[in-house]
Amino acid sequence: MPLDIEEFRKAGYKAIDRICDYYYSLHAKPVVSQVQPGYLREALPENAPEHGEDFDNVQDDYQKLIVPGLTHWQHPSFFAYFPTACTFEGILGDLYASSTSNPGFNWACSPACTELEAVVMDWTAKLLGLNPEFYNTSGRGGGVMMTSASDSALTAIVAARSRFIRLNPTIPLNNLVIYVTSQTHSLGLKAGLVLGLQVRVLDVKEEDAFALRGESLRTVIEEDREKGKRPFILVVTVGSTSSGAIDRIDEAGHVLKEYPDIWLHVDAAWAGMTLVCPEFRERAQLEAINEYATSFCTNFHKWGLVNFDASTLWVRDRTLLTDALDITPEFLRTKHGDEGTVIDYRNWHLGLGRRFRSLKVWFVLRSYGAEGFRGYIRKCISLNNQFASYIRDSPDFAFVTQPSFALTVFRLEPKMPEPLSLQSLNSLNRIFYSRLSARHDVLLTQTQLNGVFCIRLAVGAARTDDTHIKHAYDVMVEEALVAINTWRETLPAATD
Amino acid sequence: MPLDIEEFRKAGYKAIDRICDYYYSLHAKPVVSQVQPGYLREALPENAPEHGEDFDNVQDDYQKLIVPGLTHWQHPSFFAYFPTACTFEGILGDLYASSTSNPGFNWACSPACTELEAVVMDWTAKLLGLNPEFYNTSGRGGGVMMTSASDSALTAIVAARSRFIRLNPTIPLNNLVIYVTSQTHSLGLKAGLVLGLQVRVLDVKEEDAFALRGESLRTVIEEDREKGKRPFILVVTVGSTSSGAIDRIDEAGHVLKEYPDIWLHVDAAWAGMTLVCPEFRERAQLEAINEYATSFCTNFHKWGLVNFDASTLWVRDRTLLTDALDITPEFLRTKHGDEGTVIDYRNWHLGLGRRFRSLKVWFVLRSYGAEGFRGYIRKCISLNNQFASYIRDSPDFAFVTQPSFALTVFRLEPKMPEPLSLQSLNSLNRIFYSRLSARHDVLLTQTQLNGVFCIRLAVGAARTDDTHIKHAYDVMVEEALVAINTWRETLPAATD
Repeated sequence: MPLDIEEFRKAGYKAIDRICDYYYSLHAKPVVSQVQPGYLREALPENAPEHGEDFDNVQDDYQKLIVPGLTHWQHPSFFAYFPTACTFEGILGDLYASSTSNPGFNWACSPACTELEAVVMDWTAKLLGLNPEFYNTSGRGGGVMMTSASDSALTAIVAARSRFIRLNPTIPLNNLVIYVTSQTHSLGLKAGLVLGLQVRVLDVKEEDAFALRGESLRTVIEEDREKGKRPFILVVTVGSTSSGAIDRIDEAGHVLKEYPDIWLHVDAAWAGMTLVCPEFRERAQLEAINEYATSFCTNFHKWGLVNFDASTLWVRDRTLLTDALDITPEFLRTKHGDEGTVIDYRNWHLGLGRRFRSLKVWFVLRSYGAEGFRGYIRKCISLNNQFASYIRDSPDFAFVTQPSFALTVFRLEPKMPEPLSLQSLNSLNRIFYSRLSARHDVLLTQTQLNGVFCIRLAVGAARTDDTHIKHAYDVMVEEALVAINTWRETLPAATD
Repeated sequence: MPLDIEEFRKAGYKAIDRICDYYYSLHAKPVVSQVQPGYLREALPENAPEHGEDFDNVQDDYQKLIVPGLTHWQHPSFFAYFPTACTFEGILGDLYASSTSNPGFNWACSPACTELEAVVMDWTAKLLGLNPEFYNTSGRGGGVMMTSASDSALTAIVAARSRFIRLNPTIPLNNLVIYVTSQTHSLGLKAGLVLGLQVRVLDVKEEDAFALRGESLRTVIEEDREKGKRPFILVVTVGSTSSGAIDRIDEAGHVLKEYPDIWLHVDAAWAGMTLVCPEFRERAQLEAINEYATSFCTNFHKWGLVNFDASTLWVRDRTLLTDALDITPEFLRTKHGDEGTVIDYRNWHLGLGRRFRSLKVWFVLRSYGAEGFRGYIRKCISLNNQFASYIRDSPDFAFVTQPSFALTVFRLEPKMPEPLSLQSLNSLNRIFYSRLSARHDVLLTQTQLNGVFCIRLAVGAARTDDTHIKHAYDVMVEEALVAINTWRETLPAATD
């Protein structure tokens, strides 16, 4: 039976209590879910119930059936992928937003949604040190909240293609090329699939710490243009997923000055958050971003204390979005929209309906303050430095690249009488990682860098402290020992 | 200062209490926000605070600054656009989902998210009466939850283009055409902009109740193919935004049997919910959907009691999505994914990260039961019938098309000695609508149908009852009187 208001009050209190219980007990849970594929289908009926059930039972089933199937991204020993932020302030922001369910696609349909987003995007632009040209108050540039960095990048690529075609109306779509590097997030290749456009993956080198350099960009552009191919956007990264690599935006931006119809999109989904701290701005290339980026994206829902989803995208010229995406049918026309006195965010992104996402960002920023926000970023980086020092001092582990902010990429590289081949090291590390990933008390992810199989540890959960870092390292030492023995047993007799 | 667990408990209780207050007082609030553009920027500081603030103040500011800027989509007198569902069960499902912040992009990263979505998509498929070929248990077709109907349609169009190109590798992108009708939601034109592809807008006629007919589809296909243009997807609608029109899917499907490389996407974003009631299935063309649709979308977040976002998309063949969208970089590889024993939903949609949306659908279906869900749909349609009967009996109003489910499209058409021209009626109705939209106690939206300016009333808020329908009609009668007088004053003297 549907809940009435007083039943909702009781059920709501209970939900809040259970979330409190969850966070009190989180550290004691296995970080990785131990369920098997199909566990839930077996536990649930084949059909929705014909008659409504008591909501107490429903809430109890959440505890009984769903929680055991969760891998706990907020667990202090979660070091996999990149973190997803989750704060109590973010949860409450989302709760209020859900409670009125306003799609906020234009100003008129719920003014507060647009107004708060426009303000919060300026607050965050300032917090990150972005050029005032990106502020909404500039009247020319501006910021908008998206679902994910994939969504932000896809939107930027669509706007870039639209601008390119306006500038070069006779060039067929089949000749257009998106540029990414081998370290760009899969969002680049996926955007190519979505848009049906070619993607060229630019090589980057280990000696450049996997960063795109200006000269190789120039060579590739010239090569492609000679063949009649036309790059129209370059996606560069601040803090790549595999290794935290930072492309040389200064060099790339300088090259692109000669090719003004190529859009420069900066994907700083994860590491963009470091820009809140002045001491990291140089390393994260703020100056070059501010000088050269056509668009810039970072995700507050990754390392920025705001619950998924809260991807922030800024452009230096908002008409590049609206020229590409504005469709205003009669049923969406409004007085203020027609007058152009307000932002209609639906013309800044791909869909129409949208969540009231800025509310949770506003809640988090006010409760933490800029100071508290910076303190959290610094704490994560300091914990990663602790982990990196263990790796540096270990006889058995080695960095594959230098640690980047709160990410360390390493592998097992035990001292041997003869140096091991790449192939041998890769097979050893695959064994090591498969042991690590069978553990339920710590979670890390694998990656590969130019053929080198390696393991990533990313710090970001709010409850991680030095004991969890130490525990993760101890687990690795323990599993490394077993992995080395297992690996030795698999070697052909000849190498004994 | 960030909230600790006990502070969160207190703040959470307060938020729940305030949501209760909101729903107790909702009917007494103006439905339309009365703020002016820029009201919030004036009220807020230019920067995020340097030091964290007391969260009580933040929550108080939500009440003081945000609530007055909301247009209340859950208000019983909200009849604009289409409804956005909001139930207490949906709010609580979202609350639990926010509280763990799991992105759920593949099975392994949080198994419960994928498992529940796969089950819930089958529950809803059965509730709607879809062909078992669309169930996830079929192993071939399947269902996935998306952000919006725009997102669902865009995904279908991308998959359709990908299939078409595999079948016809030599046809250049510039020759591909998306088919929509003049009554298709703007998602069709927007997808064309996003993908850089041509869109052909097929005409529909008033005498066909604005439905696409098979013969006109056939004529257009033949015409285009003769010119070398190649339609690869047709988007048909069950319940168009402007008038609730229902395309003749039976006829269109029959024609498309001769063109098997054209994908048939059914957008039933709003009216798809009527399929839960057996008595509406014929009108909503269930049989033709089940026979012909390549993909089918409806939004539980519109008229389906589930908070935004919860767009459901089914395909008859899941490999059409994964062939178009699967990219699996090393850092996303998992044991179960490699074995193909689980669904990795990230390969079924455009982005990577995603919310745990199925939880709220599960909560709603269990609490309402199928029976309660049907009761709600029937109540809305019955309230719209009440409104339609006022229009039918009125000397001053007339239907522009026949009422469709819970939507009535009408205009002011006062008895006059001489019949009024279309232009005169349009200008009268614009005056009438501008008066209506200046009211704060009721909200409707405008549209136009083949040149006829008209007004839409859509029923859907959970708290709407017969008194609100009566009130809406009374307001219209009152404003019509003034509008007719105003309009008379604007007429040139010659017609006096």
